[in-house]
Amino acid sequence: MTQTPSPPPSKSHGRKSISASATPRSLTEDTRLARAWTAQIITLLPQAFPGVLAESLTGKALRDGLWQLDTVDLRQFGEGRHRNVDDTPAGGGAGMVLRADVMGRAIDHALGRSPGPLVYLSPRGRRFDQQMARDWASLPGIKMICGRFEGLDQRVLDHYRIAEVSLGDFVMTGGEIAAQAMLDATVRLLPGVLGNADSTTDESHSDGLLEHPQYTRPAEWQGLTIPEVLMSGHHGEIAKWRQAQAQELTRTRRPDLWTARRTKD
Amino acid sequence: MTQTPSPPPSKSHGRKSISASATPRSLTEDTRLARAWTAQIITLLPQAFPGVLAESLTGKALRDGLWQLDTVDLRQFGEGRHRNVDDTPAGGGAGMVLRADVMGRAIDHALGRSPGPLVYLSPRGRRFDQQMARDWASLPGIKMICGRFEGLDQRVLDHYRIAEVSLGDFVMTGGEIAAQAMLDATVRLLPGVLGNADSTTDESHSDGLLEHPQYTRPAEWQGLTIPEVLMSGHHGEIAKWRQAQAQELTRTRRPDLWTARRTKD
Repeated sequence: MTQTPSPPPSKSHGRKSISASATPRSLTEDTRLARAWTAQIITLLPQAFPGVLAESLTGKALRDGLWQLDTVDLRQFGEGRHRNVDDTPAGGGAGMVLRADVMGRAIDHALGRSPGPLVYLSPRGRRFDQQMARDWASLPGIKMICGRFEGLDQRVLDHYRIAEVSLGDFVMTGGEIAAQAMLDATVRLLPGVLGNADSTTDESHSDGLLEHPQYTRPAEWQGLTIPEVLMSGHHGEIAKWRQAQAQELTRTRRPDLWTARRTKD
Repeated sequence: MTQTPSPPPSKSHGRKSISASATPRSLTEDTRLARAWTAQIITLLPQAFPGVLAESLTGKALRDGLWQLDTVDLRQFGEGRHRNVDDTPAGGGAGMVLRADVMGRAIDHALGRSPGPLVYLSPRGRRFDQQMARDWASLPGIKMICGRFEGLDQRVLDHYRIAEVSLGDFVMTGGEIAAQAMLDATVRLLPGVLGNADSTTDESHSDGLLEHPQYTRPAEWQGLTIPEVLMSGHHGEIAKWRQAQAQELTRTRRPDLWTARRTKD
């Protein structure tokens, strides 16, 4: 038996409206909010959001309206009095599978509520990386399906032509932490989120290299000193040293990145 | 000026003691708790833990004492009245770097409090994968340093010979979500955490293959049916079909895994 959901199935985080003021809202402000980068998450654990994303830079950006976070509670689209969302795998096997009809209703609810492509977080997907974070940050937003249990009925992925994205070559109890990791990496690239725009140009994976070592005060600690060149004030030499360190680190730790980079040159 | 921390710098989650009962505590119970797998996290955001890990299977396991989570608040080891933890990079550049002396004090506090190796979560590190999760789950625990800002003074990594571990080829605002992702993947492999022990043997990355597609009720949805073989009840044919699907998915989506697997044979 199919039930129509009764409680509101979606919850929004972030600044959804301009606070009241003596002067009328300007067109600019309304436009900025209406256009804020939006993440929409279909999940059985809406209470897990925003989680760590409420902290630090991503949290400040959420409160400042630089991005928005909407959760869609999958449970509200469940079957029957107990709002069941899963059933045993066809053909047998361990665990439970998320039902196609239940997820389909949640997706239909989510589509059209916000812009951006729909992805399913799964260890079978294409691996998330810095380039994907940059691509997502350039879109108006993203919609994510968090799996639980043994996964999602394949027909949902086929019917909606949903791309699968993986956090890495490991298995988690669900997609929620993966969603938060990908949102953190993406949101920090949105305009205005990081204090200093330079911060994203000189870091690991920004130019195919791992980042050079960093040092700060005190000048000596446990008998270890800061490399002399960094104390020289000679900007040209410092840049040269850092580039050489980044190259050496990449060559020894990640020959795969090193080779990919040299092939591109 | 160096200050000794005044408020308690550590906080524990999970079942740390047996609740009072009419009968005396058994030796077995005490031993189990004393030996529970322990994660110790050095972080500037202790309030971010346990976060999503308090939910679902990992949360139940935490409450049941199958693992423990201790946070060490880096701020408490900061310098001076404002407990500063960072300073500008030696040699210039954007952002701030975590101080070696401050982190050193937090590490000295953490060492000896629980067993297991110490790792630093960083995009320069070795990539976390299912094999690393299995290795960690077989140890008595893990200690993790979460970075923030532009990273950690290199001398800390050198002095303590800390291994760097990466969630993937992307950059995050800090290590906290990465820590939660790795803990989720590891804790679910601990004995007793998953309801069905079989659940970890037939999933992606358990045998170098991506998982076969899953289906469940209803038998027909949006005109799409469940593959006939799965409805046949013929266990041998079902196993053969699933194996073929897993191989085909791996070959087309992840030729790197496919090649690595064939080389091992």
